[in-house]
Amino acid sequence: MTELADRPAQPTTSPARAPKTSPALATARATATKTGTPAVDVAALGEQLLGKWAAVRRQSRELAGRPELHKTEGLTHTEHRQRVFGQLKILVDNGAVHRAFPAAVGGADQHGANVAGFQELVIADPSLQIKAGVQWGLFGSAVNHLGTEEHHAKWLPGIMNLDIPGCFAMTETGHGSDVASIATTATYDPATGEFVVHTPFRAAWKDYIGNAALDGLAAVVFAQLITNGVNHGVHAFYMQLRDPETKEFLPGIGGEDDGVKGGLNGIDNGRLHFTQVRIPRTNLLNRYGNVDVDGTYSSPIASPGRRFFTMLGTLVQGRVSLDGAAVTASKLALKTAIQYAAERRQFNASSPTDEEVLLDYQRHQRRLFTRLATTYAASFASEQLLQKFDDVFSGRNDTDEDRQDLETLAAALKALSTWHALDTLQECREACGGAGFLIENRFASLRADLDVYATFEGDNTVLLQLVAKRLLADYAKEFRNVDFGVLARYVVGQATGAAIHRTGLRGVAQFVADSGSVHKAASAIKDESGQRALLTERVQAMVAEVGAALKGANKLPQQQAAALFNSHQNELIEAAQAHAELLQWEAFTEALGNVADPGTKAVLTWLRDLFGLSLIEKNLSWYLMNGRLSMQRARTVGEYINRLLVKIRPHALDLVDAFGYGPEHLRAAIATGAEKTRQDEAREFFRQQRASGHAPLDEKILLARTAREAKVQGGKKTKSQRG
Amino acid sequence: MTELADRPAQPTTSPARAPKTSPALATARATATKTGTPAVDVAALGEQLLGKWAAVRRQSRELAGRPELHKTEGLTHTEHRQRVFGQLKILVDNGAVHRAFPAAVGGADQHGANVAGFQELVIADPSLQIKAGVQWGLFGSAVNHLGTEEHHAKWLPGIMNLDIPGCFAMTETGHGSDVASIATTATYDPATGEFVVHTPFRAAWKDYIGNAALDGLAAVVFAQLITNGVNHGVHAFYMQLRDPETKEFLPGIGGEDDGVKGGLNGIDNGRLHFTQVRIPRTNLLNRYGNVDVDGTYSSPIASPGRRFFTMLGTLVQGRVSLDGAAVTASKLALKTAIQYAAERRQFNASSPTDEEVLLDYQRHQRRLFTRLATTYAASFASEQLLQKFDDVFSGRNDTDEDRQDLETLAAALKALSTWHALDTLQECREACGGAGFLIENRFASLRADLDVYATFEGDNTVLLQLVAKRLLADYAKEFRNVDFGVLARYVVGQATGAAIHRTGLRGVAQFVADSGSVHKAASAIKDESGQRALLTERVQAMVAEVGAALKGANKLPQQQAAALFNSHQNELIEAAQAHAELLQWEAFTEALGNVADPGTKAVLTWLRDLFGLSLIEKNLSWYLMNGRLSMQRARTVGEYINRLLVKIRPHALDLVDAFGYGPEHLRAAIATGAEKTRQDEAREFFRQQRASGHAPLDEKILLARTAREAKVQGGKKTKSQRG
Repeated sequence: MTELADRPAQPTTSPARAPKTSPALATARATATKTGTPAVDVAALGEQLLGKWAAVRRQSRELAGRPELHKTEGLTHTEHRQRVFGQLKILVDNGAVHRAFPAAVGGADQHGANVAGFQELVIADPSLQIKAGVQWGLFGSAVNHLGTEEHHAKWLPGIMNLDIPGCFAMTETGHGSDVASIATTATYDPATGEFVVHTPFRAAWKDYIGNAALDGLAAVVFAQLITNGVNHGVHAFYMQLRDPETKEFLPGIGGEDDGVKGGLNGIDNGRLHFTQVRIPRTNLLNRYGNVDVDGTYSSPIASPGRRFFTMLGTLVQGRVSLDGAAVTASKLALKTAIQYAAERRQFNASSPTDEEVLLDYQRHQRRLFTRLATTYAASFASEQLLQKFDDVFSGRNDTDEDRQDLETLAAALKALSTWHALDTLQECREACGGAGFLIENRFASLRADLDVYATFEGDNTVLLQLVAKRLLADYAKEFRNVDFGVLARYVVGQATGAAIHRTGLRGVAQFVADSGSVHKAASAIKDESGQRALLTERVQAMVAEVGAALKGANKLPQQQAAALFNSHQNELIEAAQAHAELLQWEAFTEALGNVADPGTKAVLTWLRDLFGLSLIEKNLSWYLMNGRLSMQRARTVGEYINRLLVKIRPHALDLVDAFGYGPEHLRAAIATGAEKTRQDEAREFFRQQRASGHAPLDEKILLARTAREAKVQGGKKTKSQRG
Repeated sequence: MTELADRPAQPTTSPARAPKTSPALATARATATKTGTPAVDVAALGEQLLGKWAAVRRQSRELAGRPELHKTEGLTHTEHRQRVFGQLKILVDNGAVHRAFPAAVGGADQHGANVAGFQELVIADPSLQIKAGVQWGLFGSAVNHLGTEEHHAKWLPGIMNLDIPGCFAMTETGHGSDVASIATTATYDPATGEFVVHTPFRAAWKDYIGNAALDGLAAVVFAQLITNGVNHGVHAFYMQLRDPETKEFLPGIGGEDDGVKGGLNGIDNGRLHFTQVRIPRTNLLNRYGNVDVDGTYSSPIASPGRRFFTMLGTLVQGRVSLDGAAVTASKLALKTAIQYAAERRQFNASSPTDEEVLLDYQRHQRRLFTRLATTYAASFASEQLLQKFDDVFSGRNDTDEDRQDLETLAAALKALSTWHALDTLQECREACGGAGFLIENRFASLRADLDVYATFEGDNTVLLQLVAKRLLADYAKEFRNVDFGVLARYVVGQATGAAIHRTGLRGVAQFVADSGSVHKAASAIKDESGQRALLTERVQAMVAEVGAALKGANKLPQQQAAALFNSHQNELIEAAQAHAELLQWEAFTEALGNVADPGTKAVLTWLRDLFGLSLIEKNLSWYLMNGRLSMQRARTVGEYINRLLVKIRPHALDLVDAFGYGPEHLRAAIATGAEKTRQDEAREFFRQQRASGHAPLDEKILLARTAREAKVQGGKKTKSQRG
């Protein structure tokens, strides 16, 4: 299977499809070059966007482009589930799901490549992607990362080839994001050498569990490990759920179907409950914690807190995966909406015969190009996150600090990119009007499926609080007694791209030292250093402000401390968001440094500026209230954004073509040039009608003519009367 | 049928269900009264929210609460269409759809009441609502308003009793919001006395037409009326589409199914095309334009422009209807989400044993209460719009100016409330996490169905431009040569509630005169006059600014004028939105004046302040950039919002209970108190476990104890060594 994972790109799939799909653009680019305006090298930009695992992405796109893997719209959830389960087998047969598993069991030990390939599967059907994620990214991954070699040998082959469809049974009806509080227990019984797994009340039932309603034969169940009267916290247990023949639940196990959902209806989410279910002691996935036959607990990690976070750390893969998948969906939507907007005409404001192309309207540009800029930023940030993930999971850079940095980065970017995808899909759908609402154009379908990305694998609001707490903790730890200048360097260091994916969030960069002063750089919003200064200073000031407000909270009684913290919760989340946006901006800026072609670099710089200025515009009141921008300068932000929109307009199609998706990926009726065909046909009809001299006369023109003639007649009469 | 339309309210449905559904609240209120904190009179507030047509709303809610009218989730679009078509007959049998039709044919000539009843139908199933809207609100309404008595007698009875399911065939694939440019033609042939209806190219096909794919036997087709070589603009024609027996298209007529959509899949939207289809001359709905046998055109409205807008004016009913329906959906979502948030517990920040109720988290309050405030504002504004609509359509106040005011108001409010509903449904869904994504809790289902409300019956972006153009036109017309003070009074006059629904948008109110100066009032953001001043001044300044920038545009060549206009499009739309928000704020404020109970008034005033301050916070940068708020005062806005959230918290359930929806309307598993039952069960389990002394010891506590003991031991040792 390794050779499948490594096979070269399909020659049929080119990353950049612009030359094929729009020959007009080639001409436009040629003209642009002649006239000195910059032109985008779509192929090169497409290659850069594909990133480090370009070959795997191409393979995955080729697979996702096959009709047998596509979502069939309008199925019942029962039919959709059946289809998706069948599609999983196609993924197995094509070696698409084994990259992350150990070579010893037929995998490739390739973590970044695995996630890169997974991220592209959203193109085929988000249900397929997430069902695959449940099986191999969660269930299989838990056995892989939390189990030991014996477990690998015993279960991974069946998990990989889908003989054992399984569940990742962590979330409970009563507890989602707060995993430490789950109430399912696994109590060791030394008399029989078994764990007794039990859900003591309704809120402890496992819920929203993929594969639970129908397909799951086994599960990794998360439960509080109790032995000798001590609760050692959440651990993972392998449990058989159903009889492989009858598909009936085994004794003591029951469940419910979660039924129809807002999307992802190809997945059979459900509930599971356990009534004193006995499993062998060796079913404990015991890499980070073991129970001997006599019930003695031992762990390589002494601190229960650190142990818990280490086990949960394996979950970061899900967040990294969703981050990239959300970016992919945003790209699909923008390609379709911008293609349509470049063809669709509506209202003839500037000409008596020709209607305006939608993409020439300022508001339409604002709606789509600002989101295009954010998508580029999110895409480059996503690639950095993936490389960081690969560094950690490959063991190349796998310190505790690396893992913490990775988790903070994943939480920050996953929250932003999943919300961004929903916003982009909705804006694109509305920008295409009624056509946008038809399933044949996919916006509504993708939006419904991606909706839950905002709350699963970590609720976005909770994730941003994790980021905020990390910022505060670092602040408290490192700068308790230092002045503001040190804090400035600290936050800058957190944000610069190099720091993110090579040296961790805490590395201190040289920006402040280089530029001399943040304020000096802030004098110009239009250049890179000005934007960086403004974005960075906002994060540092917000963190410092909340940090000051919470000073001494740890000395208060628990209830008062919680109340104080809660009274700043909104600011904390906003600080985390500002930090995450800065990370995206830095990733975009770093990517600009890797663009060789000057035309591409010029256009992408406008797009990066649009991203930066949009962030500044969104938070303009903060900059004004805190004296970072003058009233006069603040008023130029909107104007400058409008000028950037005009500059980007001629390159908009190039910028979405560089995403490299073909018709087999887009699968939207209005992304095919169909609108242009209709518009051309209509305009030709009216042109011929005018040329024929048989066009009906407009009543308004007739009335104007009559009025003119009456005036002339009246004038003559007056004259003759005078005469 | 009149007696059905007028029958009294069902005694079983009470507007305020709080006393029934949450007895705990009654206690809370009693306590509140004792301690002097204000309490909400839920029943009285519920009655006020029901508005002028309370009785009809109660009837409609009773109907919408019946299981046979509810949406069945998980159906295929084919099954869903069948179910909804059957439900239409239930509406007919219950006299729910006849109120707006002439008494002469069995209606009641009640326009406001009709729309009030219609707005509540969204509770049952948005597909049912919109399918009913297509049949009676659009198709039937067009025959009613654009046809004459002969047409009424001939077709309305069959339309009303559903013998003739029909289409409103206006939109074309090529033209949605720009109705004047539709390309279907109806050319009069004096030789046969017929109109020849024709779609000359693909873009001219009627598209997204409800009832077109399956059920429509007839249609009102909008087409360019051409006679004697002159195009008299868009007119409406009655056309039979299908053979009533075979359901096959008649000769010359063809169509396509629009297929699955992002929502509203109970409606059979489709496309229609006409190839030289001949219909009798008398099928022209000729109230506003007629063609004689010999082909001579005549109209009671000489100006083709005014005639067009008069005919399209009948469409305003759709916008008024959607505005209220969107508010209804927002109320359903907030009741469910706030109920759940008041029961759900997560993370135990402030206590070692008890977890926090979600609704006590600041961020959660911000997410839900700001939207609750906007929903109240939108609800009161919606009632004003409906009364204005009734005034016009009843003929009580039906001048050209009244109609223009109504159209502007409807455009402004429909745009805001439909976007608000989508935002609220999404925020509520995310606020309920995984449970929010399950269809059983309805957020995702309602959101999918309401998605298209943002672009049908007028794309929201286009509608806001209509509002902006009206603001600019009035500005240009009335204040060409006057100073800024006059403009100030003008905009204030546009916005105050009294002006909206009694004297039209152009009436000039006394606010500026009364308060002496806008700036003076702006000194306090916390009181009514301060908020009004800030919100009003923003609108006036934005309109004046764009007005100044566009000055002289009408003297430029068309293309340059269009370019100038386009370069300010974004500002224009923002000015229109600011105006619409001010209208909502004024409506909320006027409603406060009608609250008798002091406790209710106090709480609602906090909610109105929250709405006003949220608007000011959203646009804080504008106030700062334009010198309306100092840096220092601006910084207090967020703090004051946070304080309002805390004040509103104890009344949140009362405020959503006042919406008056029962379990038969909410139909959300988490709105039933199920979460409270689960939480209580879990807490009781742990309480008993702690009491029993058999609770497993937490490893962390064990470690701490061991460490303490070691320290004590160590201390002893050290002491003994010392000693």
